[in-house]
Amino acid sequence: MNRSRLDARLGDVGTDGYLLDASKDDANQLYLSGFTGPDPFLSLYVDGSIHLLVSGLEYGRARSEAAADTVERHADYDYEYGGRDERYDMYAAFVRDKGAVSVSMPPRAPVGTADALRERGIDVAVDEDDRLQDVRAVKTDAEIEHIRESQRANEAAMRAAESLLANADVAEETDDADPGTLLHGDEPLTSERVAEEIEVTLLRHGCALDQTIVAGGAQAADPHDRGSGPLRANEAIIVDIFPRSKATKYNADMTRTFCVGGPSETLRRWYDLTERALVAALDAVEPGATGDDVHAAACEVYEGADLPTFRTDPETETGFIHSTGHGIGLDVHESPRLASGGGELEPGHVVTVEPGLYDPDVGGVRIEDLVVVTESGYENLTEYPIEFVVD
Amino acid sequence: MNRSRLDARLGDVGTDGYLLDASKDDANQLYLSGFTGPDPFLSLYVDGSIHLLVSGLEYGRARSEAAADTVERHADYDYEYGGRDERYDMYAAFVRDKGAVSVSMPPRAPVGTADALRERGIDVAVDEDDRLQDVRAVKTDAEIEHIRESQRANEAAMRAAESLLANADVAEETDDADPGTLLHGDEPLTSERVAEEIEVTLLRHGCALDQTIVAGGAQAADPHDRGSGPLRANEAIIVDIFPRSKATKYNADMTRTFCVGGPSETLRRWYDLTERALVAALDAVEPGATGDDVHAAACEVYEGADLPTFRTDPETETGFIHSTGHGIGLDVHESPRLASGGGELEPGHVVTVEPGLYDPDVGGVRIEDLVVVTESGYENLTEYPIEFVVD
Repeated sequence: MNRSRLDARLGDVGTDGYLLDASKDDANQLYLSGFTGPDPFLSLYVDGSIHLLVSGLEYGRARSEAAADTVERHADYDYEYGGRDERYDMYAAFVRDKGAVSVSMPPRAPVGTADALRERGIDVAVDEDDRLQDVRAVKTDAEIEHIRESQRANEAAMRAAESLLANADVAEETDDADPGTLLHGDEPLTSERVAEEIEVTLLRHGCALDQTIVAGGAQAADPHDRGSGPLRANEAIIVDIFPRSKATKYNADMTRTFCVGGPSETLRRWYDLTERALVAALDAVEPGATGDDVHAAACEVYEGADLPTFRTDPETETGFIHSTGHGIGLDVHESPRLASGGGELEPGHVVTVEPGLYDPDVGGVRIEDLVVVTESGYENLTEYPIEFVVD
Repeated sequence: MNRSRLDARLGDVGTDGYLLDASKDDANQLYLSGFTGPDPFLSLYVDGSIHLLVSGLEYGRARSEAAADTVERHADYDYEYGGRDERYDMYAAFVRDKGAVSVSMPPRAPVGTADALRERGIDVAVDEDDRLQDVRAVKTDAEIEHIRESQRANEAAMRAAESLLANADVAEETDDADPGTLLHGDEPLTSERVAEEIEVTLLRHGCALDQTIVAGGAQAADPHDRGSGPLRANEAIIVDIFPRSKATKYNADMTRTFCVGGPSETLRRWYDLTERALVAALDAVEPGATGDDVHAAACEVYEGADLPTFRTDPETETGFIHSTGHGIGLDVHESPRLASGGGELEPGHVVTVEPGLYDPDVGGVRIEDLVVVTESGYENLTEYPIEFVVD
């Protein structure tokens, strides 16, 4: 954790304290508390100190694991498991006990807790800027190493996927499957089968993930389609993997697009354009540049080839229909945004750069690297080669 | 989804509508919308109809996948990606357009959205009962089949874990490892290694999980400790697996406790008591009985053997220090509770029954089955045998 950045951002929030009510599933909570509690618990930042309130069941682990200055348990406030009002009474007592009569909470904090504290005389403001996002965006060296480790697992998983594709046979007229279907042994090679291999490889490398994109053909034209069913030769197959380290909870993210056999001229052109858009966007990454600048660099490559982007046509459903990238850390998607209106990049920002082209009649192509902004430019954390046709 | 139960519960909430602002990571949202959107979106229940508001990127998938009566996209409200106030304006316009000027939201709904709607003249009440929990608690036959399928994957994973333990060697004085350490080949058999095997098996069976408990010795005495490091002979090893189907999103849950070699007399006695507590609690499961009754049945077995429970000593840190069970479905932990104060059981409730004993000086023992409440009693969805000593 970058404590001085945290103190600067939470210190001028305009309320006495900053309150979280969330479990480890919330990246803000994980960051501020340093504790992986499975049930919601409170973290309160007041006057440069972080205070935790957890259940008795979590107390021992929180004391040894958490980065907090103090850890208390429900019993310290004479709370016994059960009543809802008593629980909110305890929350209010905890906040007051730490010297706060006003707190800020992030926009997605629970309204039940916010309203209950208000009813008990504590002023609760919504921190619409979600300023912990801004703190989390700039990574320490240790955090960058965590992301790098997740990326190594990611590359092992991508190799496993590419190898399945490279070793696939292609069904012919005489086979049971439709001609052109990729085969793994006698069975069609499906998106699900490739995703399973990716996820098993990630587990073997200490990472978890329950969503992987392996999408071919028209499915690849929908950036949120995870893909299903048999994969086919001569189509573009998007493989997008975003694993999370089980130990550190930091994510990585990488996309490659593969084609078994011979892509159409259009797909080949799209791939080359997307690789150029990636290089152009990467070239724009440096401290002082904005997320908007980086996005513009990718858009210009596509627009120069007369392909639509959200900049030229906000309604378009084909072409480059998403932003160029996003920050990554304890969340897969976090600050900063490499998009229209995206703010200034700082050393320590870790971002994806992932231009792509989509059209159900053609397919989808996306290439995504993961980079850290440095004092002088960027370091690419991605070592995986960029190759379209596998064989 | 049990639509008549939903209509009954949401129909008398006291506001015009019931609003969710969440992604598929929220079980209420998954249930009400039937849509697995990765980013937060709105679901609004008004007058017996369910209305969705999603981004353009999700629109196609939401239209084909969601269980909603209507699906709209941001563009239908002339919203362009970007401004925070404009987004909240759109939310308010959507709610009004569906005929609601007052809505209820669950206690953990985002305060930012609730406050923003209030500022725009929509009355937002907190549904402290979180009544969708009550709707979700009673499963349809289809939901029970989903849980049963996850439980089959769970049993395959438990077999993989037990097999690793059964095939382990035990380090002797002449080995590198501490005498008594379990060995897998030449390496100590660790909690992490067993968990990896469990999780790979789950993936091969279409389930995902990134948290498994494989905890031996004193670690097993902390019910929330997931376990780490080498496992040892003659100790109790708790294996608690709660997988989620990737296709249906329904969870299963099962715990077994194993011992390689010879357990102490105390551990043996604890295991027998826990098996008796399990049987006693199961015997108490029937429609009309309460979660409190089932919990009491388990507690009585332990209390009859002079072991502490939360009933006899709310401060105890050893003995039976958790509730007897919990509902399970789209969440691993949901209604009803088999605990002090737990309410009446109904046919269609799916619950875990999981008594256990804990003491750092002895270790931990827990046995957990998964059952569905039927018209006449219960059906046990667990087929895995109950055996302590593996060899």
